[in-house]
Amino acid sequence: MKTIFSPIQLKHQGQFEFYNGAVVEGYENTSRATFITSRIEEVGLGPVLNPRPQSLDTARRIHSPAYLDFIASAWRLWRDAGRTGTALPYAWPARGRYKDVTPDSIDALLGQYSIDASTGFVEGTWEAVKASHDAAVTAADLIIKGEQACFALCRPPGHHAGTDFNGGYCFVNNAAVAAQRLLDAGASRVTILDIDYHHGNGTQEIFYARGDVQVVSLHADPRNDYPFFAGYADERGSGGGEGFNINIPLPHGTDWAQWEGALEFALGSVRQFGPDVVVISHGVDTFEGDPISRFRLSHDHFPLIGAQLAGLGTKTLFVLEGGYAVEDVGINVVGVLSGYEDAIRR
Amino acid sequence: MKTIFSPIQLKHQGQFEFYNGAVVEGYENTSRATFITSRIEEVGLGPVLNPRPQSLDTARRIHSPAYLDFIASAWRLWRDAGRTGTALPYAWPARGRYKDVTPDSIDALLGQYSIDASTGFVEGTWEAVKASHDAAVTAADLIIKGEQACFALCRPPGHHAGTDFNGGYCFVNNAAVAAQRLLDAGASRVTILDIDYHHGNGTQEIFYARGDVQVVSLHADPRNDYPFFAGYADERGSGGGEGFNINIPLPHGTDWAQWEGALEFALGSVRQFGPDVVVISHGVDTFEGDPISRFRLSHDHFPLIGAQLAGLGTKTLFVLEGGYAVEDVGINVVGVLSGYEDAIRR
Repeated sequence: MKTIFSPIQLKHQGQFEFYNGAVVEGYENTSRATFITSRIEEVGLGPVLNPRPQSLDTARRIHSPAYLDFIASAWRLWRDAGRTGTALPYAWPARGRYKDVTPDSIDALLGQYSIDASTGFVEGTWEAVKASHDAAVTAADLIIKGEQACFALCRPPGHHAGTDFNGGYCFVNNAAVAAQRLLDAGASRVTILDIDYHHGNGTQEIFYARGDVQVVSLHADPRNDYPFFAGYADERGSGGGEGFNINIPLPHGTDWAQWEGALEFALGSVRQFGPDVVVISHGVDTFEGDPISRFRLSHDHFPLIGAQLAGLGTKTLFVLEGGYAVEDVGINVVGVLSGYEDAIRR
Repeated sequence: MKTIFSPIQLKHQGQFEFYNGAVVEGYENTSRATFITSRIEEVGLGPVLNPRPQSLDTARRIHSPAYLDFIASAWRLWRDAGRTGTALPYAWPARGRYKDVTPDSIDALLGQYSIDASTGFVEGTWEAVKASHDAAVTAADLIIKGEQACFALCRPPGHHAGTDFNGGYCFVNNAAVAAQRLLDAGASRVTILDIDYHHGNGTQEIFYARGDVQVVSLHADPRNDYPFFAGYADERGSGGGEGFNINIPLPHGTDWAQWEGALEFALGSVRQFGPDVVVISHGVDTFEGDPISRFRLSHDHFPLIGAQLAGLGTKTLFVLEGGYAVEDVGINVVGVLSGYEDAIRR
């Protein structure tokens, strides 16, 4: 399986985040990517190729142009205001009556276009986000050209980013852009199956009213875990998208038996939908050793996930999302990919 | 003029806030109150009296009971989750599609009931908030019993707190509770005139559809300053409150001439409304030395404000809001009150 990744994606580095009442080093760090590329070499998964530079035309079909302009300029605006460190908001248009304006100050803009205080900008953020986006689009193009499966090593990740907001370390929704690219190239139906520990609230929001992209997610119950305000089982899509959004929230402490049962249910929904391509929002923070998550999957389970996904028999585009137990991220991410490859070859 | 204040209000102390990308000591600290009581003694403004313990019945008429329950229990929930330091949220129901649920986790609840990462809970927060509320209600009762003017030294402040959210160091909206108390005791119309540097978005939100409370605020343009998403000139009230909400946003660098012009306009609106009592949301962060604000009023201007307010000829309840140049807060807060008293006596 080919992997698409650019070293430019490492330019988003050294960012801090606000979490549990303290400013801490970003959990979403560069070593996540380097552990994965090392593991890919170690097991001989296949070549790691550079993405082709891509226009933002497809991204503009799922994100608002104003939002894309903002994330491209946020760090510069912060620096121009005399600030250092990581650009993070401190106020949001949340509860109560608020006016939907685009304010002038960088602090307001950061809040306007976000849902948390964990998704910060540093000097190289936009370059890395753009390169991560390019990796997803390039991988989608390889699927279009005939590859059975491909891995977009996207970092920063994407599934918490919505039409006009960042969140959960995500800026551009790479999986959503890839799905849109596949549709624009002729696919009639695409499923995004999100196996990350956290609900992909951005992906849900982007496709909520659409019937051409099915969004299926198994994740920690948002009553107890990020993103808290979306990901509930009764969120099933609206209008033409009614029934095409499927959430499977799971409790803290979920183990393999429980998780696999949920995956089987999810795969049943995918089969019923019958997509031309499945995009996997591929997170491994379901791992028992993850520092910010509470499921109990172990190393051995990740290849089994890959095998299950291969059983769908559809073209598959893996797009990296979360996983923060950095030394294990390579083993677990590549575990899924190898398990998929092994099952396809059998 | 009598001042109402309880030392219990100092129990909200040592809290940190997230501001401009860093965790910093709370600007809204206990020495604000002690500088004010010292200055009151120094100039002989009048007695400083303890508030009477009050029920939350009036507060429940302007805040949701669920919100009041939450702020009374937030610190305990945080501590029970094994956390230390200051209880602050990191995720909000802001942009995008979100479900209006009441989640279980303390992090979610903190975000659910707030609009920023600056309004933190420590062990003594609720006791102090309750005592600050009691000061406002006690002062309102003194006005009802016949005092011409009274000063509720409310700290924590209140004007950013809305029906079901905290923000800007505010938990219970003391001025709004006082206004409701006055109405319940027989006043037919009350004006809340907010002279704090920041827009009183909570007060606006609480009374937006009501015609019995006029809300008039002069403040920094929210395009450039907190609370960013409310306080615009075209927010004029809705339904039965249409025309009873008046915002006068002013640019950074506003000096006395400009500010006084805005005050005169505001006072004209108050006269037209003809309230039985005026509640002043009394902030002095318009001072040139304020560390987080950008207006240019100097010490000498604050007594002039008091004299202008006296010119209304109505009973006046002063309720403390912001002002963070702590060593000058006493001089400026009491400056307004003395200016008022001097003008009334003339």
